[in-house]
Amino acid sequence: MKSLIDILNLSTAEIDELIRTAISISDNPAKYSDICRGKTLANLFFEPSTRTRMSIESAMYSLGGNVINMNDQSTSSASKGESLSDTIRVVSSYVDILAIRHPSEGAGLLASEFSSVPVINAGDGGHCHPTQTLADLLTIYREKGSFDDLTIGFCGDLKYGRTVHSLIKALLRYKDVKIYLISPEELALPSYLKDYMNELGNSYIETISLEDAIPNLDVLYMTRIQKERFQDINTYENLKDVYILKKESLNLAKDNLSIMHPLPRVNEISIEVDNDPRACYFKQVLNGKYMRMSLIIKLLSLYEKTASVKETGSHNDIGSNKEIISNEKIDSDFKCKNPHCITNHERGLKGVYEIKDGKKQCAYCEYEEDIS
Amino acid sequence: MKSLIDILNLSTAEIDELIRTAISISDNPAKYSDICRGKTLANLFFEPSTRTRMSIESAMYSLGGNVINMNDQSTSSASKGESLSDTIRVVSSYVDILAIRHPSEGAGLLASEFSSVPVINAGDGGHCHPTQTLADLLTIYREKGSFDDLTIGFCGDLKYGRTVHSLIKALLRYKDVKIYLISPEELALPSYLKDYMNELGNSYIETISLEDAIPNLDVLYMTRIQKERFQDINTYENLKDVYILKKESLNLAKDNLSIMHPLPRVNEISIEVDNDPRACYFKQVLNGKYMRMSLIIKLLSLYEKTASVKETGSHNDIGSNKEIISNEKIDSDFKCKNPHCITNHERGLKGVYEIKDGKKQCAYCEYEEDIS
Amino acid sequence: MKSLIDILNLSTAEIDELIRTAISISDNPAKYSDICRGKTLANLFFEPSTRTRMSIESAMYSLGGNVINMNDQSTSSASKGESLSDTIRVVSSYVDILAIRHPSEGAGLLASEFSSVPVINAGDGGHCHPTQTLADLLTIYREKGSFDDLTIGFCGDLKYGRTVHSLIKALLRYKDVKIYLISPEELALPSYLKDYMNELGNSYIETISLEDAIPNLDVLYMTRIQKERFQDINTYENLKDVYILKKESLNLAKDNLSIMHPLPRVNEISIEVDNDPRACYFKQVLNGKYMRMSLIIKLLSLYEKTASVKETGSHNDIGSNKEIISNEKIDSDFKCKNPHCITNHERGLKGVYEIKDGKKQCAYCEYEEDIS
Repeated sequence: MKSLIDILNLSTAEIDELIRTAISISDNPAKYSDICRGKTLANLFFEPSTRTRMSIESAMYSLGGNVINMNDQSTSSASKGESLSDTIRVVSSYVDILAIRHPSEGAGLLASEFSSVPVINAGDGGHCHPTQTLADLLTIYREKGSFDDLTIGFCGDLKYGRTVHSLIKALLRYKDVKIYLISPEELALPSYLKDYMNELGNSYIETISLEDAIPNLDVLYMTRIQKERFQDINTYENLKDVYILKKESLNLAKDNLSIMHPLPRVNEISIEVDNDPRACYFKQVLNGKYMRMSLIIKLLSLYEKTASVKETGSHNDIGSNKEIISNEKIDSDFKCKNPHCITNHERGLKGVYEIKDGKKQCAYCEYEEDIS
Repeated sequence: MKSLIDILNLSTAEIDELIRTAISISDNPAKYSDICRGKTLANLFFEPSTRTRMSIESAMYSLGGNVINMNDQSTSSASKGESLSDTIRVVSSYVDILAIRHPSEGAGLLASEFSSVPVINAGDGGHCHPTQTLADLLTIYREKGSFDDLTIGFCGDLKYGRTVHSLIKALLRYKDVKIYLISPEELALPSYLKDYMNELGNSYIETISLEDAIPNLDVLYMTRIQKERFQDINTYENLKDVYILKKESLNLAKDNLSIMHPLPRVNEISIEVDNDPRACYFKQVLNGKYMRMSLIIKLLSLYEKTASVKETGSHNDIGSNKEIISNEKIDSDFKCKNPHCITNHERGLKGVYEIKDGKKQCAYCEYEEDIS
Repeated sequence: MKSLIDILNLSTAEIDELIRTAISISDNPAKYSDICRGKTLANLFFEPSTRTRMSIESAMYSLGGNVINMNDQSTSSASKGESLSDTIRVVSSYVDILAIRHPSEGAGLLASEFSSVPVINAGDGGHCHPTQTLADLLTIYREKGSFDDLTIGFCGDLKYGRTVHSLIKALLRYKDVKIYLISPEELALPSYLKDYMNELGNSYIETISLEDAIPNLDVLYMTRIQKERFQDINTYENLKDVYILKKESLNLAKDNLSIMHPLPRVNEISIEVDNDPRACYFKQVLNGKYMRMSLIIKLLSLYEKTASVKETGSHNDIGSNKEIISNEKIDSDFKCKNPHCITNHERGLKGVYEIKDGKKQCAYCEYEEDIS
């Protein structure tokens, strides 16, 4: 693996390895404090994301490396009409590794094709955000000791929430994971993910009631209803406070429930919950830093082999080791129909698709369309 | 002391200690150039302040540490509706120390309550800016050799100028400090500070004439009339050039006068004064860096005990060792009447006050109101 | 040499030295990876230039140093009315070296007058951009092995393109350099540069046809037609796509042609050319980083004497070793007529001119006017 674009680029064995290293970092940070000495990471943020940017930056500093930031599209060469691929070629010649955040879906994959150094996808529109998923996985592993046999509830925006989609895809590879999907109808999980669960034989339950679901859960993953994903402000206003996790709601929950949230939160978890020992969302932040440190070490091939430790769970690696850019089919006439796809924003970039389940799937943003 | 929010959090003995270390740094920077190796500071700037930000950043670099910047509120999680306390909890989990600049008064104190690492208040609205005061104190000490028996004139905006307020409070703790307050009526020092001087038996003289005052002064502290503090542009236009220190004005002054200014200046000191040996304002800048280095060392507990040196003056530590957040009285119905107070901007933050001189004083912004 | 403001501040011997060090860095980066340990560079960017900023930043990191960025004029003390000279005095007291990018012509020179540390001019309006020229020179030297006897074509915007002006001035000092000027009439090279070439006896050919010129060239230097230099959008629209280098155009070219471009490019080089072995523009980027590293080492006097190597060509150092600020004539009544000159934007800065070829030449922006 040269770059991390989608969580499924990682096999479960590689995730095990990242988790082992992250725990080792947490236990003994001094051992890793100089491992990236003389290395530089570029943070290319074409849209704002303070939290992710600062997490990656602090991860690199805690490894002894340097960081160059590009925070704002308007002050970049992009405003002079430069293509993303040129920017990537230039910046990758300055540094040892780069992280990219971009509003267009598939931008991370495009970056990895033109970069001379490893690329971390730090979010490409509503598509993927794999380092958040790594943070989530480490948190679940540290709280529960394994990924097998867990019952996990996802609550809130399951439609636009890319962290939810990625985490579900990652968890489906473990044994007997049961999923509760808690959302209003308007924000239900996309059907392709439900189809995927059915295919794999995973059980899931859809409900609009957090109260009904909560007693059954080992993990509750709350999400923010993201204003910026709505085109219609009224729909947002109607839905934004539909779930608020309060102290009382927790009376029904298991004693060892783990409450997670990718942050930032607005109202969906009441601040009185912060002091409950079941609240894990601030631990999740720190776990995110450890996993990003672990990932940088892996991508820069700085591993020292360490003794193997207990596995994180049993695996069925369906869909894992997904290759970056399969190139099975290149069709210069193919035009992806997703308006947010990078292929519709990058000058001279040709559309590429694969045939999957009888549909054309864009190789960049994974948008599917019927074959006509 | 875990955090520095208000200059009065420091006892005069602690200020002595900071000054000793700062002078040692100035004399032997190489000795300190690696002391913060592997440590990271976060600069959280919710409003622009290039000078302060760069001073803190260069201080950290000269100690061998790293810096993460958040420069712009609009690109931060705050724009997604995150509370300041959540931002602080997240960021403080990434770093070893943090500096915060915020437009709301009391924001520094709030940050220190939620941070897991030491906090430096780098300016909270018109309230406090203690590291500027540290720069001022080191400059006076290096120029004069002591704080006792000095005659100091403050000129310009004494109403909104928080650097003036803080420095006066800091200086009142030394012996026989005489103060000239030179300002138009509209920009006079707030009466609570005059009351405070009367209480302590300090002598001060109010005048609108810089010419009358200047022959008596050991130190002249000029200030910029800050456009951004005025709601009425006409008042600003009438007052902005009321004091301009020119070469001629200095003919009346003592030979060993020290001219200070917190910078940036606009017109209030003519550039022809820059070459006068009495001009200290550019030295003050460098002293600010040394004191910030000294403060970071102290807050991170990196002191090596050094032999004690001569005291900076005799002390009457009235008001010193002020505790951060006294919590004497918590009243969930208390609502601070200062519209710039952080308690009026932070979701879920309860008002807190103390009784002081028969008034209610907000614990965050120190705004006083009568008990009704 | 304390600062680099104009490429002509460097003698050809100094350019040889910079090239030698740059090649040594490229061959053995580890040897230089700690040479700036404990040093800090300030990047003062009063207008956006991501590429240049990141190149300088990565150069400093690859030397083991630190970087402080000021990216945005609006968040700086400048917005509070501070003069550039005050900003420079303050910032230079924080750091060991500074780079400045500014929209006003002559700003780099002004900065060097007030800075207490070496200054790198990273672009002052349409005037100079010497580190780009250093990148260009290293690229030509590495591709061709010498600067003598080369035929170089400049294509596109020769009127506003400061990289073209600087590179021509630099190349005229070498033996038998032949120049093709390929541009539409509206974007022809300024006449003072043509006069200069005539004076030195250099041969040049003007043409509007890239096809006619290309078979004769050893180096083709393409440029972007820069939207931001035009006041009239229609003129820009008519001219922007007048030259597009395509694969077919290269059929006529020499096998060892070197295609250069300062980047960013828009349409002027088709992406199909990128894979042609004659394309050098991405190598040029990396060469720019090496030359900036070399320059920082020189300006900070960190040279270890190395064995001398082969010269880069024969020299006629006409115009070299140009002194920074000659001060031959100071006239407080002189007012430069260039509206973009820093003397028309900096409070209290007096105009300065020299007499040159019977004209008054502004000492800051080099704008010439007749003596009346």
